[in-house]
Amino acid sequence: MNEEPGTDARGMGKSRIEALTDGIFAVAMTLLVLDVKPPGHLRLETSGALIDHLSNLEHSFVMYAISFVVLAMFWLGHHLQFHFVRRVDRQLLWINLVFLLIAVAVPFSTNLVGDHGHLQLPVVLYAVNLLVLTLLLFLQLRHLAASPHLTTPDLTREAVKHLRRSLLLFGVVPAASIAASFYSPRLGMYLYVLLAVPAFVPGRIDRLTRVKTDGDQPAP
Amino acid sequence: MNEEPGTDARGMGKSRIEALTDGIFAVAMTLLVLDVKPPGHLRLETSGALIDHLSNLEHSFVMYAISFVVLAMFWLGHHLQFHFVRRVDRQLLWINLVFLLIAVAVPFSTNLVGDHGHLQLPVVLYAVNLLVLTLLLFLQLRHLAASPHLTTPDLTREAVKHLRRSLLLFGVVPAASIAASFYSPRLGMYLYVLLAVPAFVPGRIDRLTRVKTDGDQPAP
Amino acid sequence: MNEEPGTDARGMGKSRIEALTDGIFAVAMTLLVLDVKPPGHLRLETSGALIDHLSNLEHSFVMYAISFVVLAMFWLGHHLQFHFVRRVDRQLLWINLVFLLIAVAVPFSTNLVGDHGHLQLPVVLYAVNLLVLTLLLFLQLRHLAASPHLTTPDLTREAVKHLRRSLLLFGVVPAASIAASFYSPRLGMYLYVLLAVPAFVPGRIDRLTRVKTDGDQPAP
Amino acid sequence: MNEEPGTDARGMGKSRIEALTDGIFAVAMTLLVLDVKPPGHLRLETSGALIDHLSNLEHSFVMYAISFVVLAMFWLGHHLQFHFVRRVDRQLLWINLVFLLIAVAVPFSTNLVGDHGHLQLPVVLYAVNLLVLTLLLFLQLRHLAASPHLTTPDLTREAVKHLRRSLLLFGVVPAASIAASFYSPRLGMYLYVLLAVPAFVPGRIDRLTRVKTDGDQPAP
Repeated sequence: MNEEPGTDARGMGKSRIEALTDGIFAVAMTLLVLDVKPPGHLRLETSGALIDHLSNLEHSFVMYAISFVVLAMFWLGHHLQFHFVRRVDRQLLWINLVFLLIAVAVPFSTNLVGDHGHLQLPVVLYAVNLLVLTLLLFLQLRHLAASPHLTTPDLTREAVKHLRRSLLLFGVVPAASIAASFYSPRLGMYLYVLLAVPAFVPGRIDRLTRVKTDGDQPAP
Repeated sequence: MNEEPGTDARGMGKSRIEALTDGIFAVAMTLLVLDVKPPGHLRLETSGALIDHLSNLEHSFVMYAISFVVLAMFWLGHHLQFHFVRRVDRQLLWINLVFLLIAVAVPFSTNLVGDHGHLQLPVVLYAVNLLVLTLLLFLQLRHLAASPHLTTPDLTREAVKHLRRSLLLFGVVPAASIAASFYSPRLGMYLYVLLAVPAFVPGRIDRLTRVKTDGDQPAP
Repeated sequence: MNEEPGTDARGMGKSRIEALTDGIFAVAMTLLVLDVKPPGHLRLETSGALIDHLSNLEHSFVMYAISFVVLAMFWLGHHLQFHFVRRVDRQLLWINLVFLLIAVAVPFSTNLVGDHGHLQLPVVLYAVNLLVLTLLLFLQLRHLAASPHLTTPDLTREAVKHLRRSLLLFGVVPAASIAASFYSPRLGMYLYVLLAVPAFVPGRIDRLTRVKTDGDQPAP
Repeated sequence: MNEEPGTDARGMGKSRIEALTDGIFAVAMTLLVLDVKPPGHLRLETSGALIDHLSNLEHSFVMYAISFVVLAMFWLGHHLQFHFVRRVDRQLLWINLVFLLIAVAVPFSTNLVGDHGHLQLPVVLYAVNLLVLTLLLFLQLRHLAASPHLTTPDLTREAVKHLRRSLLLFGVVPAASIAASFYSPRLGMYLYVLLAVPAFVPGRIDRLTRVKTDGDQPAP
């Protein structure tokens, strides 16, 4: 579908693309848990048998939690970049559709790792899946940085640099996971816990933000 | 992903986090009913056989209805607290992601109780699942109360106290369910009907609200 | 969760309840098609065999289309009433949650009719499912009509009468379906096509509306 | 449900119909990937066996990607037309509901092609499914063009012509797919890649738009 004169700038507002993105991530993140399920509804007779059964699912549980957080981080990465978007052109639209297409594959990759956690290949495929997502966020950022008519004035050179730096982690962790998978597939997966690190290490920038904000909008 | 200077306050508006939350709860609440399904598509030949079959599903139906209402109550609890949010910082974001992660596990817990209603363990796991959700709402409320720069001025000390008190029920009912499950697992589950009580016992506060509101905004 | 002084009127805006409703209906309406699927992935070798197979699914297809439209009509009925809502009190909230709980059961009822179309019982259960939904919309309308502080001034006595009348069809068609199911279960189901009639018979009121609107907002 | 005097113009705003549409497309697009799954959870012992298994799924993967993009294109087509909608009347509403009903069938058609890629019939059914969607977008556009009281003034005769022309591709590609399927079913499916062409061939119109827009809103 062409971006025609009649539809021009306002024709591709960002709100519905955001709605589709939020919807797809919500469904994908919820479907993850569907794979933490025993094949067939077996009826266990004692609590002991149930404990045995659930502990066999331990790996699936961990994979579910990791993939949920991973998808949430990519949703967040998309969210932060789209904050600066004012209009969507054809190229930005296609980057987004491919981003969603690859994001929806994460439950499949998760499933592969959950079922074949003893093999290296699924861990590598999972990492590649995430690296492609990271690449697409990079492409989107580059396109936004080069298209000031699509963005708000807030997207300064400074902001682009910061956004690019925060994408680094999304590339480094999967790469480290592939490296670690040669030693142990399971270790490769547990490395993704590192994605949560920035949540607990505020760092210099975070403190700056807080001070600046407090100054801007004094609490009542 | 870091909360950078360039993205600062406005970078994490609450609207998309609300959209993700609403989407995830909508999917999780709808998926509950998928578990009220016979394994395999059997074709019953008489109405009598169908009645027999459906009455075997009675426990699943009740569990579905209870979990639907339980999830709705937690969605509502989240909704009421987020009403006061103006900006989302990194900590609030992570509380929310973990909250969603645990909420999505409720269909799994429900499934466990539905399939093994005669055991105590699933009832305890279900209650623990809900207690963790309650704990996260408590943490969120504490964080909001301590971070006036994130909230609207409406979140007075009074409002915090009221919100905290209304969370009590979310903690007391699962705790009572665990206690009751020692006597009878089924009784433990049926206790959750108590969560609906506040809907039918208006109480002092409710009447106050109504008067105050009628005064504020007279009906046409 | 109580409606507390601190949260009062604005605490329960209608936007997020609408978002949850839209999400749940979207998921339920999409899940319907999941039941139009052969059990197991059989691989048919000729187009002839595939045609045989698909024509066996004819009943499922029709049921899917009927239930999709039925859910859409109830979503629309909810939508039209909520247009007049300004604030949500505890009672309105509970009517909505129970409405959603019963709406999510429609895919299950559809499944029953699809699998046991030769029996009368599923047709009756399906009709009862819809009658309960209609009853809840009636209760909601009565509550709104009696609570002017919750509604916009647009909800005149006239508008209430019209909304009530349009609910009639939602009650008459399922009742007729039950009656017809004594004669033939299949006929009972096909009666739901009547729900689409108002779409093609504009009637007096519709023409009035059109005139009035054209006068209000002349087209450019 | 009638469009009554009391509910008139404002009764059918477009925002909730857009929300339902976005939700249904999000679910349908995510469900596509659920079909890229081996029947039963087999546990493969070597990476070689897994590679064999995954390459058997190659056709499913390609079908998933094609259908995802196809659904995205139709979502986009709907989005562009709805940009011009100001009010929704009964006829527009029904066009939309049927559009959604047919769109939700796409995962089923995809599934058919994925499972029976060697037969011609599924490819034809898939193309028919898309042709019906295209027809509905045509009907919607015709209705909008003839109902200025429903649209914004932006929907000029020029804009209608451009929207209609961009729908052509949606009709030509499925038709070409049917023709090609007589030669090879697989070729018929791969033709859908053509839908992505406009994304990479900007053409005269696109350049015009860009100039015009740059003039309107100079980048900061």
